[in-house]
Parts: sequence; C-alpha cells; structure tokens
Amino acid sequence: MTVYMLGAGPGDPDLITLKAIKILEKADVVLYDSLANDSLLEYAPTTARLIYVGKRAGEHYRKQPEINQLLIDEGKKCETVVRLKGGDPFIFGRGGEEELALLREGIDVEVVPGINSALGSAAMIGLPLTHRAIATSLTLVTGHEDPEKSEKQVNWDYTADTLVIFMGVGLLKKYVPKLLEYRDADTPVCVIENGTLPDQKVITGTLGDITEKKIRPPALVIIGEVVDIYLEAEKLRSKLE
Amino acid sequence: MTVYMLGAGPGDPDLITLKAIKILEKADVVLYDSLANDSLLEYAPTTARLIYVGKRAGEHYRKQPEINQLLIDEGKKCETVVRLKGGDPFIFGRGGEEELALLREGIDVEVVPGINSALGSAAMIGLPLTHRAIATSLTLVTGHEDPEKSEKQVNWDYTADTLVIFMGVGLLKKYVPKLLEYRDADTPVCVIENGTLPDQKVITGTLGDITEKKIRPPALVIIGEVVDIYLEAEKLRSKLE
Ligand SMILES: C[S@@+](CC[C@H](N)C(=O)[O-])C[C@H]1O[C@@H](n2cnc3c(N)ncnc32)[C@H](O)[C@@H]1O
Ligand SMILES: C[S@@+](CC[C@H](N)C(=O)[O-])C[C@H]1O[C@@H](n2cnc3c(N)ncnc32)[C@H](O)[C@@H]1O
Repeated sequence: MTVYMLGAGPGDPDLITLKAIKILEKADVVLYDSLANDSLLEYAPTTARLIYVGKRAGEHYRKQPEINQLLIDEGKKCETVVRLKGGDPFIFGRGGEEELALLREGIDVEVVPGINSALGSAAMIGLPLTHRAIATSLTLVTGHEDPEKSEKQVNWDYTADTLVIFMGVGLLKKYVPKLLEYRDADTPVCVIENGTLPDQKVITGTLGDITEKKIRPPALVIIGEVVDIYLEAEKLRSKLE
Repeated sequence: MTVYMLGAGPGDPDLITLKAIKILEKADVVLYDSLANDSLLEYAPTTARLIYVGKRAGEHYRKQPEINQLLIDEGKKCETVVRLKGGDPFIFGRGGEEELALLREGIDVEVVPGINSALGSAAMIGLPLTHRAIATSLTLVTGHEDPEKSEKQVNWDYTADTLVIFMGVGLLKKYVPKLLEYRDADTPVCVIENGTLPDQKVITGTLGDITEKKIRPPALVIIGEVVDIYLEAEKLRSKLE
C-alpha cells in the first residue's frame, strides 16, 4: 500500500543509496526504467515481480498514463511497490506526476532521492559544476521541448554560470544557435555520454564547434567555464605517475 | 596517496551511497565537515584518525587554504585519505578548489558524488524540483555572495522556472527585494531547514511574505510553482488514513 519512488543513480550500481537498497530488499514488485542499472534488481527478493516500463526519448515503450495506471494497480494490490528510476526520480523524471496520480487514488508515496546523472557524472570525472569565483549558479534544463510548455523556455537565456542540458542530444543543432545568442562561441563545453558506466565517453569542445562532434544519447551537455577546471585537472592528472 | 572526496548526502545517514561506504571502510584518516552526519564516521576503521575541519557561514573553524594544506599533508603520508563533505562535494562545496590544490602537489583525487542537499531534501518531502509543463529548468544558486565574484550574480535575474538558494538565510532580506524585480510577490516559496534530519522543518509562503518568517540555517529556499505541487501532494497525503 506504499509506492516507493527510488532514485537508482546515474548508472554505476554502487552509486545507489543505502536507503534505496533497504527498500528494494523488501519489494513485492519493482517497476523499472531503462536508465536504472539492471544489476540493482538483484537487491530485490527472488520472489519479487520485475516489470520493465522503460522509455527513452522517441521510443516510448509505455506511455506515462499507462505507467501511472500500472503503479495504481500494483499499489492497490501489494504492500511494497518500488518504482526505480534513473538518477533522481524528481529531476526530469516525471516523478511528481506519478506521485500525484497515486495520492489521488489514496495510495501513499515515499520518495528516496538518487544521485542525479548530471551532478553524479560530473563529480565522477572531477568536473565541479560550481566553483568559487567562476560559477556560483547552476541551471539544469531539458533539451527535450515539451509542447505543453510556454514559449518562455525557447529563449535559452539562462543566466546561470553553468548550464547543463538533459535529453538534448537529438536537438543539439536546434538549440546551440539559440544559446549562441547569449553565450560566446568559445564558451567551453563538455559532453558526458553514459556517465559513470564502463562505456562512458567524455567529449570536450566549445559552443562554437560542439555540433560538429559525434554525440550519442544518453548524454549530458555541460556548458560554462567550469569545463576549464576539468581540463586543468585532467592535465595535472596525466602527469601523475 | 589518494584523496577520496566523498559526498555524505544531505543529513539522513542512509542517504549515503554504497560507493562512499566502501571507501570509508578502508580510510586511514577522515577529514569531515559539520554538514556531514557524524554517524557516518562509524563506517571508518576504529584505527582511522578523524579530523574535524568544519565550517559554517560566518564561523570558519579552519580557512580553506588551511584545509587544502592539511589534505596535502595527509595525502603525502597516507594511502587512503577521505574528505567527507555534506551533500555533494562539487556543489557549493569548494571541492574543485581542493581537487586542484591536491593535483598540483602530485596527489591523486577521486570524487564520489553525494546526494545534493536541495535535490535530496526536496525529494524526501515529495517536492519535485522539476515538473512537466510547470518547471523544465532548475537553477541552484548560492545566497552567500562571494566578494571575488563579478557583479553579474547580483542581478538575481535567473530565468529558470525553479530557483533554489543555498546558504541564503542570513541574506534573505537583502536578496528577496532583488528577486521581486523578476518574479511576482505571490510566487510560492518553500524553505526546508535541516532537510532529511529528525529536526527538519518545512516552511511555506510566498516571495512577498517569506522574509517575515522565522528561518534558521542550514536551510534551502525553493522558489517557483513546483511548491504548489508539494502543497497539493501534502493535502492529498493528509487525507490518507
Ligand atoms: C528522462 S531524463 C532522467 C534524468 C534523471 N531523472 C536524473 O536525475 O538524472 C534522461 C536524461 O538524463 C541524462 N542521463 C541520465 N543518465 C545518464 C548517464 N548515465 N549519462 C549521461 N546522461 C544521462 C540524459 O540526458 C538523458 O537523456
Ligand atoms: C556550503 S553549502 C554545501 C552544499 C552541499 N555541498 C550540497 O551539495 O548540498 C551549505 C548549504 O547547503 C544547504 N544545506 C546543506 N545541508 C542541508 C540540510 N540538511 N538542510 C537544509 N539545507 C542544507 C544550506 O543552504 C547550507 O547553507
């Protein structure tokens, strides 16, 4: 009778929290996404039912209202329902929608935060998204434009020092020109593909040349001077024996 | 010969990652902050030295260059040095400065992300910082103005849908009028004091009346329509038996 919305973290299975593990261990059923690492399912009891409800941009395996209904059905039937989501359930994860849908049906929801993919992937490569005197503000934004959203976002006039774009690979060519209205072409950019996973790839460039690079989803696009801190750290790291 | 910069999470000791626990378990020495939950030190071997380097706004127990030097000294002496920081080490945590200081002395640094206090505290109370059609961008900013920082920040013209202010309690009366130049007085605000801890306090209001409320640090100030989603969820929760 409780749905636990758990953050699975960015990919590396050790980046899950102890709190999430403890709940997974008593799950009756687990509904999981494609961005949540499959190996985390091993924490669930062998008797637990595992239901894949994955979706990626473009390839919606199940539509959101369907997932909500499935959660409601399971929530009415089972004691401990786990909804396992990549990263943090409440950052571009539609967790708020699932929470409201469940509460409206009288089913309790508890949320357990996970390591957000941008904060987690950046930290793991040694890239500080904020840095004293260089970046005292950070904006996370989705590059996947929501047709229901007002025109406001389309401006891309985010004034924060560091900007991170989620779900933005497919539309990169579309919004980089818009970003260039507000930021210099030589603004450093770092793209992290498959962050914290064995096949992670880090691509650096500038706002002026980033659209020329080959980038595959899932990826995070980090824009701002903090990328230079990462480059400096990488240079120093290469000198360590 | 390696300094591990570990995120301790927002406060609840179960919000640490498995990865951080595994490293704490082999620490020779742990340098920890006041915002990292003390109970996490129990993961360290009984033989590990524990060094408090805490600092809060105003009350700098040790200055940053002193902490850097201490890390360098320990890094040269010990195999496994742990630097345990509240939240995520790279979000308003001066992690990038410590990383560069160490690498410049030839000491390797590995960063393990932690649950950021804003993302974590908001999720735990069921407040989604992003929400489809309502908030597709999120800005994290420090309210503690850095004298070295350019004037840019002082505008507070952050255009993201949701704005979260860290370290901002003392200066609330100073920057709320500035925020009011860009946002309506009836914009909903939620303040989380001691997020995820037993003495957590959640205060809601609007940009127009928030300065009249009693707020104590450490606290996070969340501004934007997503606060209404939280209020709606709370109302529904109160009806659950
Ligand atoms: C639907 S959003 C979910 C975000 C997630 N809730 C979080 O907190 O990180 C999916 C987007 O997150 C980003 N993402 C998630 N995991 C990633 C990873 N391991 N590496 C790179 N990007 C990732 C990509 O931008 C992807 O398109
Ligand atoms: C120096 S910053 C460190 C932030 C940390 N690195 C993080 O990722 O959350 C300290 C500020 O974080 C916020 N903070 C940290 N832990 C908190 C908690 N448990 N509850 C409320 N605010 C917290 C407060 O705004 C505090 O002034």
